[in-house]
Amino acid sequence: MGFRMSEGVLVGAQVAHAADALDRVRAGAPLVQCITNSVVTGFTANALLAVGAAPAMVDIPVEAGLFAGIADSLLVNLGTPRAEQRAAAREAVEAATAAGRPWVLDPVAVGALPVRTALAAELVGRGPRIVRGNASEIAALAGRGAGGRGVDAVALPEDALSAVGAIARMSGAAVAVSGAVDLIGDGESVFRIANGSPLLARMTGGGCALGAVMAAFAAVSVRGVDAAVAATLVYTVAAEQAAERALGPGSFAVLLLDRLAAITPADVLAAGRVS
Amino acid sequence: MGFRMSEGVLVGAQVAHAADALDRVRAGAPLVQCITNSVVTGFTANALLAVGAAPAMVDIPVEAGLFAGIADSLLVNLGTPRAEQRAAAREAVEAATAAGRPWVLDPVAVGALPVRTALAAELVGRGPRIVRGNASEIAALAGRGAGGRGVDAVALPEDALSAVGAIARMSGAAVAVSGAVDLIGDGESVFRIANGSPLLARMTGGGCALGAVMAAFAAVSVRGVDAAVAATLVYTVAAEQAAERALGPGSFAVLLLDRLAAITPADVLAAGRVS
Amino acid sequence: MGFRMSEGVLVGAQVAHAADALDRVRAGAPLVQCITNSVVTGFTANALLAVGAAPAMVDIPVEAGLFAGIADSLLVNLGTPRAEQRAAAREAVEAATAAGRPWVLDPVAVGALPVRTALAAELVGRGPRIVRGNASEIAALAGRGAGGRGVDAVALPEDALSAVGAIARMSGAAVAVSGAVDLIGDGESVFRIANGSPLLARMTGGGCALGAVMAAFAAVSVRGVDAAVAATLVYTVAAEQAAERALGPGSFAVLLLDRLAAITPADVLAAGRVS
Repeated sequence: MGFRMSEGVLVGAQVAHAADALDRVRAGAPLVQCITNSVVTGFTANALLAVGAAPAMVDIPVEAGLFAGIADSLLVNLGTPRAEQRAAAREAVEAATAAGRPWVLDPVAVGALPVRTALAAELVGRGPRIVRGNASEIAALAGRGAGGRGVDAVALPEDALSAVGAIARMSGAAVAVSGAVDLIGDGESVFRIANGSPLLARMTGGGCALGAVMAAFAAVSVRGVDAAVAATLVYTVAAEQAAERALGPGSFAVLLLDRLAAITPADVLAAGRVS
Repeated sequence: MGFRMSEGVLVGAQVAHAADALDRVRAGAPLVQCITNSVVTGFTANALLAVGAAPAMVDIPVEAGLFAGIADSLLVNLGTPRAEQRAAAREAVEAATAAGRPWVLDPVAVGALPVRTALAAELVGRGPRIVRGNASEIAALAGRGAGGRGVDAVALPEDALSAVGAIARMSGAAVAVSGAVDLIGDGESVFRIANGSPLLARMTGGGCALGAVMAAFAAVSVRGVDAAVAATLVYTVAAEQAAERALGPGSFAVLLLDRLAAITPADVLAAGRVS
Repeated sequence: MGFRMSEGVLVGAQVAHAADALDRVRAGAPLVQCITNSVVTGFTANALLAVGAAPAMVDIPVEAGLFAGIADSLLVNLGTPRAEQRAAAREAVEAATAAGRPWVLDPVAVGALPVRTALAAELVGRGPRIVRGNASEIAALAGRGAGGRGVDAVALPEDALSAVGAIARMSGAAVAVSGAVDLIGDGESVFRIANGSPLLARMTGGGCALGAVMAAFAAVSVRGVDAAVAATLVYTVAAEQAAERALGPGSFAVLLLDRLAAITPADVLAAGRVS
């Protein structure tokens, strides 16, 4: 019973932290460097601007490393890892680490695709604060599956639970698995977030932009798991609000940006469902 | 009169096939690999997701070839053909051919621009299932004109009729010419589709995304011409529905995604205008 | 008093020129080549299409130089300057200059980032018709500051006034500084435009797309300062109209495209605020 209560407090504390962290993102406008894929660059920058952060897509060699020492946090998303981006990612991770800045790894479509899979395996050992992916990607990153078909999630989040623990123990990162119920763990605690909308899977960049928002929250949170939970709560509650008015995936993506800009800490406290 | 009737049956069969193919795309969620230009990647992925397919923008060397053996179909769009994309396109076409997967060639802005024109000339001889472009591009690909000014269509679709036949006979592909009336032929039959909206030409990626949707339909159709007609019907009927509510090109693009997700086989049967 | 009156006439003439130039853009559909960053390519092309121009994102070596001799004007935006884009920018600027075509330089995030800063310093001396940026970028380009944090504007437009004069005298270009009040000068006159919306800073590409629209207007105007003022008036009045109906930054970006397509010369005459 004590365990249950402390678990309850912990859960309540997560929602309260998320509401508070949203205020801190808006007050501080953290500068988030994004090295991300060519499909979602525009939507990702817009999601960061909407939530109150300052995006900077600095992803070429020489500049990426320099900038990672200036930025407040870094996202490395491996969706379309051209040669210049791979070099940029390596130097940015090194510089962010040297400067003590948190960074998020999004190992898009790892498993069957060798270039990104090798890079993800290298980077996951270099101290990401958060690793975010769908269940197939997290399983593949932990060496427990061949990955999905591209960016599809074939495995279910719950199947990825042991992979979450394995990656967390190996890397020290919090690990976030996106799905109908999002699952976030750090090797000790596991949180499940039941907000969101099926429409997030019907638009491109729904998960990739969440990785960037996690990087924004990592800049204002001490622990990776708190940042990942807070970003997921804000993002998926905004997604629920957007889905209420959306006519389909096109208007949903537009309204998601509107709601990321308008969502209040009170909205997060009222609607956040963490267990 | 017999000819007219069989033509009528053929035409009716095309609309029925389109309605049926839409169901098959949604049931099968074909995995469509896209090697496409940097302007339209996001919209193209969203169009595929909306219609029910699974996009994967795998466009770097080594991975592109491997993935083309996994994906259900492939789009090669030459809009911004960086060096890595050109290498990726070549290996993906080779792998798709080896695996018996259909692929679509969209020779954006061929004619005056030498890098893409040389690559298009090489690829068109390697067995695309469908070649899609505007009238200027199709004419240029057949060696009958210098191409338009960039992505503009200067020639009219009807002017491209002889080019359609020439490319179809040379490559074995179905050839689709976008315009106010879309024209699709395979060297034997020619179909004209009178659906659509002028707003499709006022947004970027209207044609490029149609090429990707053709690749999705090619994964569930035997013949290229049937896939091209079906994709064009679904896409242009959805565009008509979107145009009814659009306030301009911005909201049109958003509503087009909404309608691609919502359009039913019955809508296609009711509104499709093929001759 | 004579000076005030001639200044008044000059100001009135600028609004009238903008209204007239909008008609000329729509009548002529100038072909605008864009070498721009990966974050905003889609939105930039859509903004050009909406306002009535014809975008062409030709940004690879060999093709970029050839195309700059065909296009009516050129935009060089340094937001994500990959190696191929840097080579493409150099050859396009050379070809545009040889062909007497106007080109616009947008030195995104110059200052702290060495690759783009070196390229901007090289290009600004090669005869741009217009240089556009935020106050931090313009100050950094003039050697008067270290630039902002990425694409953020830290300095205020008025602080950039001496930088505007310095760049204008050094390069012969008109210099446009985006901000709450836009500031445009050519070393002799300085115009301030008080239209726009704070939402322009809450979406990505708000400034980058304006640079492309300036290139479109440069194709139909003799002087760079007139083109920059006209483009800014049309764009920021459209932004005011969009902001009236927007629910947030997502719908604002969509409505901005709608309004760029719908705005009339009479709207510009009625709402333009130049001083």
